[in-house]
Amino acid sequence: MNKVYISGIGQTPVQEKWDKSLKELAGDAGLLALNDAGIGYPDALFVGNMMSATANQQLQLGALLADWLGFHHKPALHVESACSSGSSAFRAALMAVASGEITSALVIGVEKMTDSPSAEITSSLATAADADLEWDMGVSFVALNALIMRRYMFEYGWKHEDFADFSLNAHANAVHNPYARFQKAISRDAFLQAGMICDPINLMDASPVGDGAAAVVLTSRPTRSDRKHVYVAASSSMTDTISIQNRKSASHLLAAEESAKKAFAQAGVQPKDIGVFEYHDAFSIMAALSLEAAGFCEPGQAPHLAKEGKIRFDSDIPVATMGGLKARGHPVGATGIYQILEVTQQLWGLAGPTQVKRTKFGMTQNIGGSGSNITTHILKSE
Amino acid sequence: MNKVYISGIGQTPVQEKWDKSLKELAGDAGLLALNDAGIGYPDALFVGNMMSATANQQLQLGALLADWLGFHHKPALHVESACSSGSSAFRAALMAVASGEITSALVIGVEKMTDSPSAEITSSLATAADADLEWDMGVSFVALNALIMRRYMFEYGWKHEDFADFSLNAHANAVHNPYARFQKAISRDAFLQAGMICDPINLMDASPVGDGAAAVVLTSRPTRSDRKHVYVAASSSMTDTISIQNRKSASHLLAAEESAKKAFAQAGVQPKDIGVFEYHDAFSIMAALSLEAAGFCEPGQAPHLAKEGKIRFDSDIPVATMGGLKARGHPVGATGIYQILEVTQQLWGLAGPTQVKRTKFGMTQNIGGSGSNITTHILKSE
Repeated sequence: MNKVYISGIGQTPVQEKWDKSLKELAGDAGLLALNDAGIGYPDALFVGNMMSATANQQLQLGALLADWLGFHHKPALHVESACSSGSSAFRAALMAVASGEITSALVIGVEKMTDSPSAEITSSLATAADADLEWDMGVSFVALNALIMRRYMFEYGWKHEDFADFSLNAHANAVHNPYARFQKAISRDAFLQAGMICDPINLMDASPVGDGAAAVVLTSRPTRSDRKHVYVAASSSMTDTISIQNRKSASHLLAAEESAKKAFAQAGVQPKDIGVFEYHDAFSIMAALSLEAAGFCEPGQAPHLAKEGKIRFDSDIPVATMGGLKARGHPVGATGIYQILEVTQQLWGLAGPTQVKRTKFGMTQNIGGSGSNITTHILKSE
Repeated sequence: MNKVYISGIGQTPVQEKWDKSLKELAGDAGLLALNDAGIGYPDALFVGNMMSATANQQLQLGALLADWLGFHHKPALHVESACSSGSSAFRAALMAVASGEITSALVIGVEKMTDSPSAEITSSLATAADADLEWDMGVSFVALNALIMRRYMFEYGWKHEDFADFSLNAHANAVHNPYARFQKAISRDAFLQAGMICDPINLMDASPVGDGAAAVVLTSRPTRSDRKHVYVAASSSMTDTISIQNRKSASHLLAAEESAKKAFAQAGVQPKDIGVFEYHDAFSIMAALSLEAAGFCEPGQAPHLAKEGKIRFDSDIPVATMGGLKARGHPVGATGIYQILEVTQQLWGLAGPTQVKRTKFGMTQNIGGSGSNITTHILKSE
């Protein structure tokens, strides 16, 4: 596949933005990315979004945002794969540029959640699960993750307190990210004493939703000579059963494992070569499962990595370096683009106080549903 | 761009299918297409669908359908661009195969509409329009098209009765299509006396919604030697303003014109070379505008083509040869794939009683929203 470069990035802070609409958020991020890339309008627009139909009474985000950004008569479409919508849109754009059909693409991930009643958001999030086997039973998305976490704790003997360091690390890093939803550290006591949402998941295990948009520009040639060039060394997307009950194991993300293996093979690298890993810590249990599935440790062992400090930005396996989903925030369909944008910043060497040391390879893993649609990307600087 | 072949097709009849769910319909069409192509599981799955979030409480159709079809650990995603979701999914799959990343893709267009209250369907369809400028004003999708039709009649002096032959032709062709929703001809009187829905659009100007799924298999090499090979000679997608009020002209589909021009240039052909044109006759006014925008006649002249019989399957510009949206039916997100499937049948020479004579080039034009997202494909047989 032809080389495709990430030539520009743009983002809005993740917040409750009562004064900005979906198209305003997406437009802000998109224009910032185009400006950062130093190009005018791109050849095509790809939009990652999950729940605009229910939360914003709006579909057609391709045409809507092309119109809002001020260009017409170019291809524009909307890609959805629940919480991995952002990276799926990125991947579709990647293929289009790699095919030679277009030479540049703007990819915007956007989610506008706080204008809808919270009951509607909970119901919307549940459309990522199986409507027949899960949604109809009244299982919310948090509840599905709680079932997975309970099973994991049972199988490996971990206690709730053993998950604290995933959240503490994310919040510690978010202090330095002006785009993070929660720019403050949390104490171990705060984690332990947080209110229970759905046992064993408490408030500090869960990422906050929010409003946000992130954008990247993909090009077939680098557009700027004043910083390192970052390109996509591997792109791998895989599904598993949509319902948890049909999986061989509830406590292991098999599609994530296979997706990561394929990505490592494509890029010709191993886990030890990855200088930064933006994982999908929607819940602390997903942080653990993602590290294990990606091959950074054996199944059941991820809490050790967190407890020993190995996931800190200045240690072996830097994760959530800008706060991750837990503290930067999780505007669902935008998250996959925030991840890619953050790894790009790291590989450029422009990540600020949480800059990692090794900037050759970075990796993202974006999880749709409860592990049913996984997209892994490895980026490389040159 | 590398050649990409349409190697297999599959479809369900468009009906009110109270006994089949979205995934059953999609699965049926998908397996038929894989079987027709003579391949096992494809390298990736692309799903075109508009309104499953609201009509079926289900997103994640990529993972859902990969799971239902029985394969995992492959890429699968959902593409949406309102009524052109099917062709947008097709185009995303086309790019992925052309990029070399995959060698085969299954593309399924599916919409399951009859299990939801009709008020909800009307509301869902309106998400294709601009939420701020159109949806909030209470304008339904039929009303938007009625505004366009009224303007067109005012500008060019046509009367309602002048649109009859678009619908008569579609129904006459659908008689021979076992997958059509209405397999019966209608009389001119039936057209003229049909109940008014939204003046000047009456029941016989409007296409019926329905449940349906259509699927095609794309491959980088032909898979069967026992019939002609059909490949994608041009793919062009373009947007216009999402709201009608912001367009230069309400009565001309500028994005459709530009999209068709680009497609003709890509394929190196002209309108006169096209042996069959599956247009987007969601309403009779859209049939007229599509013919004009695609260059088959001058603006304001399309009703002449219909009145003179030139759009019949055995005449100059065969359209709606299997019934079109008007009589085959318009399961929204599936329509774009039905169109591609029908042109493929024509180019194979396997279209039955409404087989066209010239089978070198066929064209589809799929319209998202009220002309805001247009995808044109030209297929070629060899």
